[in-house]
Amino acid sequence: MVRFLLLNGPNLNRLGMREPHIYGHTTLAQLEKQLTEFASEYGAELTCYQSNYEGALIDQIHRAESLYDGIIFNPGAFTHYSYALRDAIASIQTPVIEVHISNIHAREPFRHQSVLAPVTAGQIVGLGVNGYRLAILALLDIVEGKEK
Amino acid sequence: MVRFLLLNGPNLNRLGMREPHIYGHTTLAQLEKQLTEFASEYGAELTCYQSNYEGALIDQIHRAESLYDGIIFNPGAFTHYSYALRDAIASIQTPVIEVHISNIHAREPFRHQSVLAPVTAGQIVGLGVNGYRLAILALLDIVEGKEK
Amino acid sequence: MVRFLLLNGPNLNRLGMREPHIYGHTTLAQLEKQLTEFASEYGAELTCYQSNYEGALIDQIHRAESLYDGIIFNPGAFTHYSYALRDAIASIQTPVIEVHISNIHAREPFRHQSVLAPVTAGQIVGLGVNGYRLAILALLDIVEGKEK
Amino acid sequence: MVRFLLLNGPNLNRLGMREPHIYGHTTLAQLEKQLTEFASEYGAELTCYQSNYEGALIDQIHRAESLYDGIIFNPGAFTHYSYALRDAIASIQTPVIEVHISNIHAREPFRHQSVLAPVTAGQIVGLGVNGYRLAILALLDIVEGKEK
Amino acid sequence: MVRFLLLNGPNLNRLGMREPHIYGHTTLAQLEKQLTEFASEYGAELTCYQSNYEGALIDQIHRAESLYDGIIFNPGAFTHYSYALRDAIASIQTPVIEVHISNIHAREPFRHQSVLAPVTAGQIVGLGVNGYRLAILALLDIVEGKEK
Amino acid sequence: MVRFLLLNGPNLNRLGMREPHIYGHTTLAQLEKQLTEFASEYGAELTCYQSNYEGALIDQIHRAESLYDGIIFNPGAFTHYSYALRDAIASIQTPVIEVHISNIHAREPFRHQSVLAPVTAGQIVGLGVNGYRLAILALLDIVEGKEK
Amino acid sequence: MVRFLLLNGPNLNRLGMREPHIYGHTTLAQLEKQLTEFASEYGAELTCYQSNYEGALIDQIHRAESLYDGIIFNPGAFTHYSYALRDAIASIQTPVIEVHISNIHAREPFRHQSVLAPVTAGQIVGLGVNGYRLAILALLDIVEGKEK
Amino acid sequence: MVRFLLLNGPNLNRLGMREPHIYGHTTLAQLEKQLTEFASEYGAELTCYQSNYEGALIDQIHRAESLYDGIIFNPGAFTHYSYALRDAIASIQTPVIEVHISNIHAREPFRHQSVLAPVTAGQIVGLGVNGYRLAILALLDIVEGKEK
Amino acid sequence: MVRFLLLNGPNLNRLGMREPHIYGHTTLAQLEKQLTEFASEYGAELTCYQSNYEGALIDQIHRAESLYDGIIFNPGAFTHYSYALRDAIASIQTPVIEVHISNIHAREPFRHQSVLAPVTAGQIVGLGVNGYRLAILALLDIVEGKEK
Amino acid sequence: MVRFLLLNGPNLNRLGMREPHIYGHTTLAQLEKQLTEFASEYGAELTCYQSNYEGALIDQIHRAESLYDGIIFNPGAFTHYSYALRDAIASIQTPVIEVHISNIHAREPFRHQSVLAPVTAGQIVGLGVNGYRLAILALLDIVEGKEK
Amino acid sequence: MVRFLLLNGPNLNRLGMREPHIYGHTTLAQLEKQLTEFASEYGAELTCYQSNYEGALIDQIHRAESLYDGIIFNPGAFTHYSYALRDAIASIQTPVIEVHISNIHAREPFRHQSVLAPVTAGQIVGLGVNGYRLAILALLDIVEGKEK
Amino acid sequence: MVRFLLLNGPNLNRLGMREPHIYGHTTLAQLEKQLTEFASEYGAELTCYQSNYEGALIDQIHRAESLYDGIIFNPGAFTHYSYALRDAIASIQTPVIEVHISNIHAREPFRHQSVLAPVTAGQIVGLGVNGYRLAILALLDIVEGKEK
Repeated sequence: MVRFLLLNGPNLNRLGMREPHIYGHTTLAQLEKQLTEFASEYGAELTCYQSNYEGALIDQIHRAESLYDGIIFNPGAFTHYSYALRDAIASIQTPVIEVHISNIHAREPFRHQSVLAPVTAGQIVGLGVNGYRLAILALLDIVEGKEK
Repeated sequence: MVRFLLLNGPNLNRLGMREPHIYGHTTLAQLEKQLTEFASEYGAELTCYQSNYEGALIDQIHRAESLYDGIIFNPGAFTHYSYALRDAIASIQTPVIEVHISNIHAREPFRHQSVLAPVTAGQIVGLGVNGYRLAILALLDIVEGKEK
Repeated sequence: MVRFLLLNGPNLNRLGMREPHIYGHTTLAQLEKQLTEFASEYGAELTCYQSNYEGALIDQIHRAESLYDGIIFNPGAFTHYSYALRDAIASIQTPVIEVHISNIHAREPFRHQSVLAPVTAGQIVGLGVNGYRLAILALLDIVEGKEK
Repeated sequence: MVRFLLLNGPNLNRLGMREPHIYGHTTLAQLEKQLTEFASEYGAELTCYQSNYEGALIDQIHRAESLYDGIIFNPGAFTHYSYALRDAIASIQTPVIEVHISNIHAREPFRHQSVLAPVTAGQIVGLGVNGYRLAILALLDIVEGKEK
Repeated sequence: MVRFLLLNGPNLNRLGMREPHIYGHTTLAQLEKQLTEFASEYGAELTCYQSNYEGALIDQIHRAESLYDGIIFNPGAFTHYSYALRDAIASIQTPVIEVHISNIHAREPFRHQSVLAPVTAGQIVGLGVNGYRLAILALLDIVEGKEK
Repeated sequence: MVRFLLLNGPNLNRLGMREPHIYGHTTLAQLEKQLTEFASEYGAELTCYQSNYEGALIDQIHRAESLYDGIIFNPGAFTHYSYALRDAIASIQTPVIEVHISNIHAREPFRHQSVLAPVTAGQIVGLGVNGYRLAILALLDIVEGKEK
Repeated sequence: MVRFLLLNGPNLNRLGMREPHIYGHTTLAQLEKQLTEFASEYGAELTCYQSNYEGALIDQIHRAESLYDGIIFNPGAFTHYSYALRDAIASIQTPVIEVHISNIHAREPFRHQSVLAPVTAGQIVGLGVNGYRLAILALLDIVEGKEK
Repeated sequence: MVRFLLLNGPNLNRLGMREPHIYGHTTLAQLEKQLTEFASEYGAELTCYQSNYEGALIDQIHRAESLYDGIIFNPGAFTHYSYALRDAIASIQTPVIEVHISNIHAREPFRHQSVLAPVTAGQIVGLGVNGYRLAILALLDIVEGKEK
Repeated sequence: MVRFLLLNGPNLNRLGMREPHIYGHTTLAQLEKQLTEFASEYGAELTCYQSNYEGALIDQIHRAESLYDGIIFNPGAFTHYSYALRDAIASIQTPVIEVHISNIHAREPFRHQSVLAPVTAGQIVGLGVNGYRLAILALLDIVEGKEK
Repeated sequence: MVRFLLLNGPNLNRLGMREPHIYGHTTLAQLEKQLTEFASEYGAELTCYQSNYEGALIDQIHRAESLYDGIIFNPGAFTHYSYALRDAIASIQTPVIEVHISNIHAREPFRHQSVLAPVTAGQIVGLGVNGYRLAILALLDIVEGKEK
Repeated sequence: MVRFLLLNGPNLNRLGMREPHIYGHTTLAQLEKQLTEFASEYGAELTCYQSNYEGALIDQIHRAESLYDGIIFNPGAFTHYSYALRDAIASIQTPVIEVHISNIHAREPFRHQSVLAPVTAGQIVGLGVNGYRLAILALLDIVEGKEK
Repeated sequence: MVRFLLLNGPNLNRLGMREPHIYGHTTLAQLEKQLTEFASEYGAELTCYQSNYEGALIDQIHRAESLYDGIIFNPGAFTHYSYALRDAIASIQTPVIEVHISNIHAREPFRHQSVLAPVTAGQIVGLGVNGYRLAILALLDIVEGKEK
């Protein structure tokens, strides 16, 4: 069975509580439940983890290499400066897809750059929480080895 | 019935013939056929158009407002400097999803910036031609008005 | 008789339909009619042309040298990157006045720069469609050779 | 009756005496006389003021709010660094039109930027002293509330 | 009763021990005691927390929304790069006042920028540990809803 | 008796009249009265001065050395470019505290930098007109020689 | 027989008519005739094409792969921003030699950069229309496989 | 007896497992064992610590002041942005030598800058794991107070 | 008889009172007396003027054209941003020599640039108040028309 | 008889020995022999000189004015920073053609800029050692005074 | 027997005479003697060379390829701009270790960058003249082929 | 007796022969003779030296410490990039005055910066060859220890 890790970074525990005009009303717990069911329909087991600690996210990424077939990662604000997360992603073979709920390119300039993007397999940006579902489909596609 | 426009910009007529290690072996004709069928499975009609002329793409985007419910747009190298395409996209209500086959953030620095991204609904980057399929799903989601 | 060319660049065919809080409700056809009449009152014949193609605008500018006594040019987004239009303007003797309907200096940073301004005779910015009328008056003044 | 303020900044008292190939031979006194007559033909009363002191120009702008219907302002070199003038203009409702006699975009790089432009109603650049006349017409148009 | 959180970031546990010519001789424990008493005189209860972990500070800020009426925050070096703390502050309604003991604008260039300042209510900089007392007064003023 | 100078720069004579959503409704005269009373409660005599002339502010700062024990200075837009004021402040021993009513770091980029900050004793930013009161307290603290 | 394509970009149809102190007096038609004869002496067949449309030039470059053994390309102002032409050149195996009639490094700063140079085989700059002849010789040398 | 702390930052727990062409095949456990023995030969006791948490590394550095005579520190990616670590190092008297296994100046541009280097005693870069041994020797030299 | 103007800008009225390790102990009054005598020895009449007002300095420069044969100008901090003074100097034929007492290139970065230098005849920097004497000699040399 | 100087800068004495995939296998001695013969066929005498000393190259350029009709110059890495060589070239009337064996625009960023290009007659880049032959032809063309 | 070259660049002949608080009191002659003995203890023969001429250093590096097994190179100020030395180092197989006596990252900004570092094997910075000894040990380690 | 060194850098051997509109018609030999006589009138012995070699100039500066009381140095183009000369000047106690014949701030941008200026005693710029005479006077003033 295919196993994926859903990894959410800093402040995403506030999903559904904070700036709903940008991030919607779904809470993280609800979202994790929806996505687990969605993944399950496609025969994939989804494990969910969130932390506000950069170190904890690095630890999870290291462990992912032997435990998961792919990672769906919304790094929150770490997107823009965590070179340590970049190195962690670069150090594993497991494909990582970066998801951003809002269109980071339509917001403050500091959000335009992702220091992780050069080492993630791909990015899905601005498509709301639906972006997570698309990332699951994309990972399935990669795991099944379809021509890119 | 839902109608989408698949718009491909400069040099994408060379798909499958050029740098296959980056862009794969599928030709544009094959891809358009596959995506038309894929859209059709979801009840969407896909119209396909490709041009190397910026002006021709602008014309298509203007016409799209009354003809289509959404646009899947791979702007090729126009991504990085065509402010005229940006204005065209900004001038219509129809949602546009930007697709890039390769991970532009892992390539030359000039490719890191998209002048279109601030006005497109979202971006799907680096996921191969599968990115087009995900964009169709994302447009369906937007058209159906699911919570973002 | 004095002959002027009114040249409008990309997306200006959408005038009156797009972002009316910025560009007003007059369509391009209406505007061209009004300006032709206005010019006519001052004894000037106005020819109108619009295109979304950079190449087509360059062709018009080349032809203008032998056909017109001055050009009123709203280059739209080409303002900000079309060095080819700049070279076209620099290659003719006919004076060109650059018009921008909205105040480009109060909008996005990329709009602050005009790569054409160094080679146009002058610029009229932010004064709405009235800017076109002022440009006609300015060209008349130049043609009549008043002291600048 | 419509009342306008003609405001000229530093070094414009030297008009007609300095670099005539750029600024022409008309002195400031002559120009003020011509423009007062021109405005008068259109039913507008023009008050003229020039100073080399930034503080004096700020004082005039503050007073303008209750005394005038519009300001024609050539800020001279203050264009490029006087954020205090910018704040003064932003603090009043009276529309201000910025005039530059020469084409500042065809000269030294430091002249390309106007820190005032984002808060003025519009700019007329490079059209010689005729630019002042066009600014009077533009203000009349704004005061009469024509569609922009 | 009004409740405030005093939040100190990395290396502030070293207060009074490190570079006393810049930071003075008061230890963090002494300072927390003094400020608690000071707040108490004004009828405010002060809770004190320090951590060298960015994640721990984010957690505290999230919790503050329901527990406190305001936050006095000296973010230490996180001031200059923690966009994750910025997002945490932006995600809560509780006002945050940023305090810096030394004049960061008179030190190394990297210290001149605060990535938090755009989302904090205000900043008090360079006034020594007295800055914390002023921040308590400022928060009281905000809570009491005086005109700003 | 302790004597302080309250110095307000360009456009602050417009306080209460301009952009009240940013600067509040208190006029400068009212504010000066309130602050004089406030200072008086703490045994300090406050002298008030405002000018739109950079030169006049420099003169005041020079005179302050022998007349006052401290300066509360809101330099308005001079904050961002008046190196002459910077030199004036650096040339005296009297402590100067910089006050900004609004949060300059949350506004236009040119407002983020203060060329005066490296030579002022400290800065109080974004706390409304209450910032002036806090500055008086801070100056008292400095004059009384409490440990910073 | 060896076949080469001579490709000239925007405004080069004005050769001999525009700024003769920079570009000389030979018209494009005369130049094409001379170069065809010159190539013919070396046993090479030269096909000539000029356009002011970026899209038309891209189409020609795509077609060149099967039709020509080399391209002599003067991209005019597209040199400085057409990443779409860059991609077109990068997508073919046929060698391209970039020619600039004037010394672009001795002119305006924007002309110093060629976004095409990284993907062309070589550049010949500043040697007048003779540069085209040298480019033909260089292509012959490449085609004959001499040691570089 | 001389006591040193060997401090390794984020992702160095992956040593020997990740990108062996850059970092070699020795695991962190093996390396720590080798270095402990090496230090022991020179009469120095080596304590080893690794963490992916910036806060944990800061805590260790604070504790080092009273426990160790020197620190050998490979900060991993924190090298490039952790101003909090920089402050921690600056707050102690204990000398710190920065070690990088690979030549960071021959890799991606973001790796060229070390925000820690201005406050470390010295740096040893690009000499493989042997760099750690050299750092031990350098610390011994510093502790013994040889002329630098 | 040769007549020169000695012009000193903002804060130079504080000479001898401020930062004597940089500017020496001579007051402005003493310096003006010394220089007047020095000039007199060489048959030149020196008129002295100092102001903290940019506008007053501009007025003096304008008047200098008809009154003086040369200007010795220490613009103080206006050196670094007063484009209005630059225009004033450019508008007169009278030669201006820029003097800086301290070596501005060895101080803060903002002092490295002089916006006036491109339009002054020459600069004498870092040679203390002796620089004024050398400037008088240089002006004499220019007036006497020696070969430069 | 026409006389040319072939000038090679630093490290070109290593030609044929160093990085042959970039620079080929021909040694400098062989190349000088081939080019001397090539020039001779066209009636030109070629003198060859190479040095790793900037000063020696400057001396040669100075002497060239009276000895040669043209210079073929490969400045090696001096291309990118030797403003002294630039001044030397600018100080003579003899035309200089800059040759680079490899395509410097396709290599490291620092190689993209030539500080010499603004003062050389032209540049031939990326065409291998054949570039030297083309430069000889170009110089002959210049000497013979053909229309550029 | 292993042979190394000790290469010292400009101004290092002044070692021990210049700024001893930075560089110590050992003269170059003394240092060369000490290092020769040190190398000898490890069975390596050290040849010493110093020059203030860039060209002379390039010549030495070229010769080193056949004469030495490694180079210890302190390039002095050439570190920051000599691309010619960079090319010389890149053109040989012999490993080069860059040594800087003082911590260049704690000094003026222009010293932070080494244009040589990308092509040297490694760098030892800030460890005083002991850095030379460590470089000898590092070269021995490289020559003996230990795992890096 | 006071002894000074007159040091001229690259291309100054061409004085009087090159660009006389900028540098005048006096040759270096004539200038050296004039200056020697001028110095002699003031009781100073002048030794003259010119070289196009950076290394030779460094050697002279080193020797100057024991031989001369001051140096008049025109570094030519080395002004803008020779950090090695900067270090040489910084390593000696002898005062150095930098002379530039033309106004470098009114020429190409690369000439605006002097990397030597932070370590020279002062600069005399734009005053023609008379600048050398003023530098001799300035050095005499320094040697005699007058108040700066």
